[in-house]
Amino acid sequence: MNKYEHLHEKTISSQSIYDGRIIKVKVDEVQLPNGKTAKREIVHHQGAVAVMPITDDGKLVAVRQFRKPLERTIVEIPAGKLEPGEEPLSCAIRELEEETGYVAKKMELLSSFYTSPGFADELLHVYVATGLTKGESRPDEDEFVDVLELTLAEARELHRSGEIRDAKTVVALFAWENRMLRSHG
Amino acid sequence: MNKYEHLHEKTISSQSIYDGRIIKVKVDEVQLPNGKTAKREIVHHQGAVAVMPITDDGKLVAVRQFRKPLERTIVEIPAGKLEPGEEPLSCAIRELEEETGYVAKKMELLSSFYTSPGFADELLHVYVATGLTKGESRPDEDEFVDVLELTLAEARELHRSGEIRDAKTVVALFAWENRMLRSHG
Repeated sequence: MNKYEHLHEKTISSQSIYDGRIIKVKVDEVQLPNGKTAKREIVHHQGAVAVMPITDDGKLVAVRQFRKPLERTIVEIPAGKLEPGEEPLSCAIRELEEETGYVAKKMELLSSFYTSPGFADELLHVYVATGLTKGESRPDEDEFVDVLELTLAEARELHRSGEIRDAKTVVALFAWENRMLRSHG
Repeated sequence: MNKYEHLHEKTISSQSIYDGRIIKVKVDEVQLPNGKTAKREIVHHQGAVAVMPITDDGKLVAVRQFRKPLERTIVEIPAGKLEPGEEPLSCAIRELEEETGYVAKKMELLSSFYTSPGFADELLHVYVATGLTKGESRPDEDEFVDVLELTLAEARELHRSGEIRDAKTVVALFAWENRMLRSHG
């Protein structure tokens, strides 16, 4: 980190605000590179995985679900929170099968990224799942989703209309377009 | 919303936890579609913009900055929070110039997405900026960033090495690759 010491913010004090089931919130007082102090509001999240499942006939498997923070449903790629100590790949396999019933022959990491590094430490791992075979979906008892299978044109239209509207699914859409552009020259 | 009533979560009660400068936190008790109840931990954020600036010689303008929630620096496209009532496009123009000194002839909306809809309502608008001319960067007094100009190969390498590691910049990277594939395809 020394190389970027001129950007570093040193913690002076840290105050715990909330310790919930999904998130913890704290406020740190930091010393800025210019010696002044500032507050940083920080949300801790244990991390999550998402899966971009592409069927053999070239469709994206997605789920529509209600998102309380937005007070609406949106269409997303399947995803779920990491359990403590859980490997991201195991979590991805589990979430894909639970939410959609699909089992993948091949899972490849597409990208791992922080969803909102300005205020949160949530790290999301996105996998591409191919070689899909359909079993039974077994959603958590308290999880309510509609499973969709979308062509690229349909997914683009849902992006235009604002029903695809979250970071991981936009990443998946652009990555999917990228694969199609490469494979069709 | 009636069409998706079978997915809806009705608010039973709402408890304010924290009212900060950047985020507000609340916990809602909701009624699930099966009649059971659950808690939802929700972070409110006023929204933000990001800019994917491509120079005439085909480089991406990016910034390295320290992110307190991650306790490290990462390389990101320029971004900033919306002021209350501010138009996203005005904010994008302002943030680009403040952070990098660049002024764009053309700004096009690439995508608007929620960064982490499971627990937060932050909506991020990403613009592609082209026709760039360089002026003076005027960072906020308490903002410390290194400005970088990256070739696509350099940006891909930073993604592989984990220095590009946030949702908006990964979206920008895939969108940029798609532009290149389309224009050379």
